Amino acid sequence: MRDVAIIGVGQTSVGEHWDRSLRDLAVEAIASARQDAGVDRVDVLFVGNMLSGELAGQENLATCVADAAGLLPIEALKIEAACASGGAALRAAFLTVASGAHDFALAVGVEKMTDILTDGVTSSLALAADADYEAAHGLTFAALNALLMRRYMHEHRARHEDFAPFSVNAHRNAAVNPRAMYRQPITVADFVRSPVVADPINILDSAGICDGAAALLVCPATEARRARRAPVRITGSACATDTLGLAERRDPLLWQAVADSSRLACEQARLKPKDMDLFEPHDAFTIVSVLTLEASGFADRGSALKLAAEGRLAREGDIPICTLGGLKGRGHPVGASGAYQLVETVLQLRGEAGPAQVKGASIGMAQSVGGSGSVAVTHILQV
Amino acid sequence: MRDVAIIGVGQTSVGEHWDRSLRDLAVEAIASARQDAGVDRVDVLFVGNMLSGELAGQENLATCVADAAGLLPIEALKIEAACASGGAALRAAFLTVASGAHDFALAVGVEKMTDILTDGVTSSLALAADADYEAAHGLTFAALNALLMRRYMHEHRARHEDFAPFSVNAHRNAAVNPRAMYRQPITVADFVRSPVVADPINILDSAGICDGAAALLVCPATEARRARRAPVRITGSACATDTLGLAERRDPLLWQAVADSSRLACEQARLKPKDMDLFEPHDAFTIVSVLTLEASGFADRGSALKLAAEGRLAREGDIPICTLGGLKGRGHPVGASGAYQLVETVLQLRGEAGPAQVKGASIGMAQSVGGSGSVAVTHILQV
Repeated sequence: MRDVAIIGVGQTSVGEHWDRSLRDLAVEAIASARQDAGVDRVDVLFVGNMLSGELAGQENLATCVADAAGLLPIEALKIEAACASGGAALRAAFLTVASGAHDFALAVGVEKMTDILTDGVTSSLALAADADYEAAHGLTFAALNALLMRRYMHEHRARHEDFAPFSVNAHRNAAVNPRAMYRQPITVADFVRSPVVADPINILDSAGICDGAAALLVCPATEARRARRAPVRITGSACATDTLGLAERRDPLLWQAVADSSRLACEQARLKPKDMDLFEPHDAFTIVSVLTLEASGFADRGSALKLAAEGRLAREGDIPICTLGGLKGRGHPVGASGAYQLVETVLQLRGEAGPAQVKGASIGMAQSVGGSGSVAVTHILQV
Repeated sequence: MRDVAIIGVGQTSVGEHWDRSLRDLAVEAIASARQDAGVDRVDVLFVGNMLSGELAGQENLATCVADAAGLLPIEALKIEAACASGGAALRAAFLTVASGAHDFALAVGVEKMTDILTDGVTSSLALAADADYEAAHGLTFAALNALLMRRYMHEHRARHEDFAPFSVNAHRNAAVNPRAMYRQPITVADFVRSPVVADPINILDSAGICDGAAALLVCPATEARRARRAPVRITGSACATDTLGLAERRDPLLWQAVADSSRLACEQARLKPKDMDLFEPHDAFTIVSVLTLEASGFADRGSALKLAAEGRLAREGDIPICTLGGLKGRGHPVGASGAYQLVETVLQLRGEAGPAQVKGASIGMAQSVGGSGSVAVTHILQV
């Protein structure tokens, strides 16, 4: 396998883009990534997306984006792995370049969740759960995560407000990210009194519904000097799966797909979680940050809340997470979020994260999770 | 890049499986392919599918299938390229094995189009067209292809009944395929008097709505001797795109994505169309067979109807097509069809096609098309 590097990144602002379509967003992110790299060539496009069929009435999405972005007649495929689709698109780009089949591969994650065809997005998001055994019975994603959070609070004698530092940290970091959706800092008091969505999960436990697109251009490490920017190497890339339904797991608080994909990515990079200068977790709900930190080996079982309480997850801490706001603060355009996490990791490793910069960051991990921990895609990036 | 071989294939019968779910179908095809290969190991799963979100309320489909098929915790991703999704899943499997990232990759195409969540499947199929500029105005796929057929008839002074031999040939071949949906032979008279769908397209121009799944297990050519069956090598694999909307093309009768993907696959295999012992085209409508034969270089512009009239596309001819019934006769479970075409090509090359066998077949091309020629995936297989 050839070594692969990221040579360009681009992103739209995240928010409610009522005046812009799915393809408008993808085109902006792609143009921005190509300009960032200063390389004209693109041989193949992978589009990470979960809900274009349901929400925009558009499948054949990769062709749609390739056409709109002026990339015809290149190969173009859509990759779907629920909320991990954006990370999975980079993985497909990585594999294609590693194989030698293509040299310049573009991965774009895009999702348009406002101005949609359906009555509301909650039922569409449930497409990532088990249609027959979960969604059909009315279980939403907030409800599934509420079950997990309640169980975690029971097993580890935690209070709901113990989860506040995750949300406070995400909002603090988003406040200095010009692309983020929620740029207002919040306090623990705000967190505690925010309205309940699915008890015990409240609004400030939950990432917001929004639109956005983010893109990354990759090429063989040997070609990366052609780019304008310093290359960021992909030294670990892995995907693993767990049961689709939450009820099928022996231990619902052990997210095995997350554990497996982290372990595989670390083995490839010959690194351990403690070597990471930052970690971008899939913080769709605060409980997800907790479970992924524990499954990935950043914290022992039952100890992630303590890490947060001690401030170790802040940008000045030893395990900075959600450094540009995470899904909670930047926003969570589901099929695009994985690509945002990777773009933000690249900005950190290049030293271009502005006031959100993690000092001296040279190794970062970005991780996307689909369903209730049923699929995980983990990448390790290094300069 | 490593050489890649197909070592196992499996398929469900194609039809209206009212008693079976999306996952049931995928599991049967996967189990059958694994048993065919006689190899236990699977490292990664690619699921080709177009409409699981829309019709079954299920995304995160690759995890769903991996779970149901007992393949956890392996990597699993869904690939969507409209009606070319099945071919695209094999392409993803091919690239992954070629790269060295995985050794045993499973590609499954699956679609469930009966017993669905929506009122009808026609509007769902339009998700492969341009949502904003075609589908929003009521253009169905039959209508888009009717425009193409009418234009072809005008430019080449053809009559509608000149397309009959394509349908007659497909039904003749399907009649001896135990997996096919439409096993009754038809006559030119049947074709001429069949009900109109979208003038000039009639029922017997059109592939049927149905359910099905087909799977292929691939590995490095050097590992193929571990399998029970003689390996079939993938010597060409390519994907190309064209405009999503039909109206954007300078020449709507020249399917450039088909031409590009065929040319690239032939260059890789160092072969020409005339070297193929059989060709499995994407015959969703008779006009599609005509346009793909011409774009792929099997026939000059305007001459494909003549090939059919002369019987050269029959299994005894020099360019056998739709050898086990094609999309028209076997059935067209959209995201699965590409995988069926590949499975059938493998059966032909192994000499296991029964009464449908093309004598002495050693090289075959299978081609999937998504949208109105907007994406094409072409594979060349050899023994």
